[in-house]
Amino acid sequence: MSLKRILNPESVAIVGASKDETKRGFQAIRRLLEEKYEGQIFPVNPKESRILGLKCYAAITDIKDNVDLAYITTPAKTLPTILKACGEKGVAGVIVIAGGFGETGSEGKEREKKLIEEARKNNVRLIGPNTSGMINVHEKLNLVGFREPPRGNIALLCQSGNMALTLMTEASVKSFQGYTYYIGVGNEADIRFHEYLDFFSQDEKTKAILMYVEGMRDGRRFLQQAYKTTREKPIILLKSGRTTTGKKSAGSHTGALAGISEVAKTAFKRAGIIVIENPDELFSAAETLANLPPIKNNKVAILADGGGHATIAADILSDLGVEIPRLSEHTQNKLRQILPEAASVRNPVDVAGGTDSDPSVFAYCAKAILKDSDIGGLLIVGLFGGYSIRFAKSLELMEEDAAHMMGKLVRDGKKPIVLHSLYSSAKPHSLNLMRYYKIPVYDALNVACKSISVLAEYGNYLRRYKEKANFVLKWGSKSKPEGKDIIKNAIRENRRVLLETEAKRLLQIHGAPINKEILATTAGEAAAFAEKIGKDVVLKIVSPDILHKSDSGGVRLHLRKKKDIERAFKEIVQNARKYSPGADIRGVLVAPMAEDGVEVIIGTKNDAQFGPVIMFGLGGIMVEILKDVSFRVLPISTSAAKYMIEEIRSSSLLNGFRGIPPCDKKTLRRLLSICSDLIESYPEIEEMDLNPLILHEEGLSLVDARIILKENIPK
Amino acid sequence: MSLKRILNPESVAIVGASKDETKRGFQAIRRLLEEKYEGQIFPVNPKESRILGLKCYAAITDIKDNVDLAYITTPAKTLPTILKACGEKGVAGVIVIAGGFGETGSEGKEREKKLIEEARKNNVRLIGPNTSGMINVHEKLNLVGFREPPRGNIALLCQSGNMALTLMTEASVKSFQGYTYYIGVGNEADIRFHEYLDFFSQDEKTKAILMYVEGMRDGRRFLQQAYKTTREKPIILLKSGRTTTGKKSAGSHTGALAGISEVAKTAFKRAGIIVIENPDELFSAAETLANLPPIKNNKVAILADGGGHATIAADILSDLGVEIPRLSEHTQNKLRQILPEAASVRNPVDVAGGTDSDPSVFAYCAKAILKDSDIGGLLIVGLFGGYSIRFAKSLELMEEDAAHMMGKLVRDGKKPIVLHSLYSSAKPHSLNLMRYYKIPVYDALNVACKSISVLAEYGNYLRRYKEKANFVLKWGSKSKPEGKDIIKNAIRENRRVLLETEAKRLLQIHGAPINKEILATTAGEAAAFAEKIGKDVVLKIVSPDILHKSDSGGVRLHLRKKKDIERAFKEIVQNARKYSPGADIRGVLVAPMAEDGVEVIIGTKNDAQFGPVIMFGLGGIMVEILKDVSFRVLPISTSAAKYMIEEIRSSSLLNGFRGIPPCDKKTLRRLLSICSDLIESYPEIEEMDLNPLILHEEGLSLVDARIILKENIPK
Repeated sequence: MSLKRILNPESVAIVGASKDETKRGFQAIRRLLEEKYEGQIFPVNPKESRILGLKCYAAITDIKDNVDLAYITTPAKTLPTILKACGEKGVAGVIVIAGGFGETGSEGKEREKKLIEEARKNNVRLIGPNTSGMINVHEKLNLVGFREPPRGNIALLCQSGNMALTLMTEASVKSFQGYTYYIGVGNEADIRFHEYLDFFSQDEKTKAILMYVEGMRDGRRFLQQAYKTTREKPIILLKSGRTTTGKKSAGSHTGALAGISEVAKTAFKRAGIIVIENPDELFSAAETLANLPPIKNNKVAILADGGGHATIAADILSDLGVEIPRLSEHTQNKLRQILPEAASVRNPVDVAGGTDSDPSVFAYCAKAILKDSDIGGLLIVGLFGGYSIRFAKSLELMEEDAAHMMGKLVRDGKKPIVLHSLYSSAKPHSLNLMRYYKIPVYDALNVACKSISVLAEYGNYLRRYKEKANFVLKWGSKSKPEGKDIIKNAIRENRRVLLETEAKRLLQIHGAPINKEILATTAGEAAAFAEKIGKDVVLKIVSPDILHKSDSGGVRLHLRKKKDIERAFKEIVQNARKYSPGADIRGVLVAPMAEDGVEVIIGTKNDAQFGPVIMFGLGGIMVEILKDVSFRVLPISTSAAKYMIEEIRSSSLLNGFRGIPPCDKKTLRRLLSICSDLIESYPEIEEMDLNPLILHEEGLSLVDARIILKENIPK
Repeated sequence: MSLKRILNPESVAIVGASKDETKRGFQAIRRLLEEKYEGQIFPVNPKESRILGLKCYAAITDIKDNVDLAYITTPAKTLPTILKACGEKGVAGVIVIAGGFGETGSEGKEREKKLIEEARKNNVRLIGPNTSGMINVHEKLNLVGFREPPRGNIALLCQSGNMALTLMTEASVKSFQGYTYYIGVGNEADIRFHEYLDFFSQDEKTKAILMYVEGMRDGRRFLQQAYKTTREKPIILLKSGRTTTGKKSAGSHTGALAGISEVAKTAFKRAGIIVIENPDELFSAAETLANLPPIKNNKVAILADGGGHATIAADILSDLGVEIPRLSEHTQNKLRQILPEAASVRNPVDVAGGTDSDPSVFAYCAKAILKDSDIGGLLIVGLFGGYSIRFAKSLELMEEDAAHMMGKLVRDGKKPIVLHSLYSSAKPHSLNLMRYYKIPVYDALNVACKSISVLAEYGNYLRRYKEKANFVLKWGSKSKPEGKDIIKNAIRENRRVLLETEAKRLLQIHGAPINKEILATTAGEAAAFAEKIGKDVVLKIVSPDILHKSDSGGVRLHLRKKKDIERAFKEIVQNARKYSPGADIRGVLVAPMAEDGVEVIIGTKNDAQFGPVIMFGLGGIMVEILKDVSFRVLPISTSAAKYMIEEIRSSSLLNGFRGIPPCDKKTLRRLLSICSDLIESYPEIEEMDLNPLILHEEGLSLVDARIILKENIPK
């Protein structure tokens, strides 16, 4: 069901309406009247007949007209009755302000569960609970404590009322832009992030979606929707609760599963979301993305009227991964005609006093720079807007002239300009003009740099999004009958851990290269196999009762001679019996010793918020000490696998190093994608570890594999 | 010579004084008059008799009174004559505005060198050239283009006029604090950063020193002075030109050797300098450090009136390495008495509406929190200051009450409070009161977090500075006669690279553990040595003409048998003769093969700005692929060596890993300090490489060592 009736309601009931000025039930009605909401307002309170000149109803069911939305300010215990009445009345949705639910601990979680059951039973959708409310800015439907939210083209989805207030204030103070909607998502108990996203994707007035998130209930659905949304509109997100202390703080705040891990950041970026870490850059990033075209080629020019700002901006943009290419000879020549001899014209461009007596020169420089086909966008840093303040009043009109020219350059072209001005907060007319043309103006240099960089980041994503996965798992779609049997059999035998032989076979069925190996049941069989393959072999115990093979004395390496193999076989079996009397011994795995190569590991697990994820890293210290690993939410394609491999810091080791030849990355990519298929095929799998996995110049050797099934799968 | 006469002059000559309003020579005089400089002003221009009511002199030598400082606005070519006149007149210093020197390339560098020669010859010190000028704010001596610089307790040393303007504007707009001095360092051609630092260290009004640096001419002297200064006063520094593009931009701007490397950051921090990366956090960090006591125990509490800000602040502070400990039970109980039941009282503290009807409650919370002996400082985040704006006018006096209480808490106690307020820019009276008590107020959350974190960072430094080195090299102080002979001998033989045997011997003389090895001149000698030590040996060619031993076929490993050794000896010598006919072959080094262990490397080199520096890292991919190394400016103590070792990401590998026993870190630390002694002993050394160096459970094996001498050392 669409959220249209809830977020664009034509009528609102205020349940808990009041005549007491300190109550939300009064303030909400007053605000709707003051801000001139055009829909119908129905106060509901059995004790009053009129409030603020409006007729007051004893119950929501007494209202004759249609009611789209109910704003409920009464305490938690009144909710079942009210939800029932809303159901009877056919109300589409309710906003529940009351707290005391999931955010307070396990009892609250239980209450929240019941609340949602009530809402579902009555066919009513629910925003909150524990929310600061909702605003539809263009319809003047303000159900929150802030006055006069700034109107604009950004939808705001927020899990903190104070952050919303911060972002509203920032828009009012620093910008001409504002919001279409504000949703206080609260505990996200019923309506989820992805549903709001879907709604905003379709809302014409919304050009960007700004999110502050502490925790998320259905990360996967969110990713799926975000992946669709970001092709049309940018999403800008700050995720707090990253650190241990932050997590604790968020947990006591929203009651959501807080602390989305490193996995989340990668996944968000793959879904095209612009992830912001510094809260001071959040609004500006959204404003810029909502109003300017993305940068198509990751290349930016800097135009400055002083070396210091140019140098710092160049540092920051480089750190942010944006290229600052040398301007073409043609462009440099044009700039030389405009600017004095001392100017730097390569990029950054430093006007070296060339704008002092006529700041309209900025616009001519900007025009020349943006005409350079290699330049995707322009960042202007320094004093523009303040020439009339700092130098002479007479420069004012020249600055305004420049603003009009630059504004039209952006409006009529396809390349953005972002402006850093020391005089931003003084709001001179020329800077208001820039804002009129939707050119954002910031006084913080870092913020200005970040803003132009997100245009590049979004442009980079749009150029490449087809390579990305859509986060949709087709459970079971690629399963094989033999694979299903292996898993069924383990479940039947009450085993959660597959035998090494089973795990390897499962991988093999799906196309993974597994060395030829056998499960020997006699010493003779083991020796015969070794002789046949003519290589050193390893012997490993295979028993569902022995998970730690080495600890049980169940592994012997580098065996070649018949006599040695036979002895090892017997000792392994003896050790196993001693280690775990009565163990169900299925035999001894005989496998060729892996040739030398580079050790890597692949792992998968089920993330509480995102479902199955996959991890890749170099083995040994790289994983265990340096945590040099990359993650992806499954499924992944072979091209995603390529990026995963390249992403680890030690990746270049796979290209060959100190006499070690380059590794077979093609086979590795294929194996990663096979792992993805495997997990997608068998929803019973909880986690999988391919460790160690040895990469060779050609091919690879999977030395050990471990697959663990989920708990409580019915037989 | 002290800079007192130059920076606190009692009289100033304006050379190039003018009646033309657009000229600096007019503007400077007008500003001095307008801002009421109390010293004497002497316009100098042969063509005028009076300017702005002041008598004008034809030449500086015509002035009868004493002249402390000359501000020179005339072009570069006039400087020799003017400097000569200044010398005759006994002027202490000059400010040279003119550009066209080092910043423009090699010809400019030559001009700059001559300029400084002139100044020295005439015994005149020089600020600049290519500077925006200088301000002594308290004496109202303003020789820069900005009007009315804000007065305060921060000295500003800056290599960009625009950054200075930014920092001045920020102080005026966002703070009640300001500056004691501004120095436009310009090309730093004569007076260097360390001299200004020394002056500010002794200036009573200056409580903190704020620096924007693009490049530095004498990094070592700067470090030495900073090490002294930071014990008394904090230094806050932003270094730009970090990235390749940034470096280029800085190079064309100040002409200094731009782009201090990663070495610099570590060195700055060891000297107690607060290094800032984000320009938007620069002024706030200085303001906070100039006005509040440092935090002694790295532990901070967060007080919030909303979960969102608390969570983000906790994240940011954790990332910045500040601890946010749980408050004591006693403190929690006190807070519970003040706040409603729903409040979080552990830390972050969330008042949960407890300040809504009476914001003076903030002060009672702050008092309880700062009394907690485990808490070193308090960050308040959210809406304080805006309760009267957001909720009701009647709350205004309660906010003011809170401000007075919190102000006195900070003034009379020894713990700082930093305030984040969404309403900072609205400047309500309560926030002005906070500022009156020198409590900084910021509307950017990141900035507020950074500000409290630098108080912790500075406190951490002051607690531990005795462990730090003072950056003073006592050249030659630890040298040994035999060591000197080795080096002298190489120089006599025109060799820049010491033989491996010489390098190892030099290390051994200084106490480094070197395995027993010999320089064999016959095959028999080599074999006899191997037999004596009873281990596998390695044979390596020793010849000043063969630097790449392996390439020449000059290395043989794992030899034990007499026959094999004798053959290897002969082959090595033959290979050497073939590889480099006529090579001076000194013999073959016979050394025991190093036992297994962890490979590390130690290197030293001469940094252009800091002189000798040392590098440590794990060998192989850790250095070559992951660049996982740590640096120090020499000399270092064994305790500095300890931190160097711990600093690399892969450090825990040295504690044992996968069957590799823990390494002998004690011997490693000693070796690092021996390397430091060695470099300090012999100024002839350009660089040294101990690579590979194998660490064992006990002791270590230096497999190869290479020492390169400086070029052009006289024999």
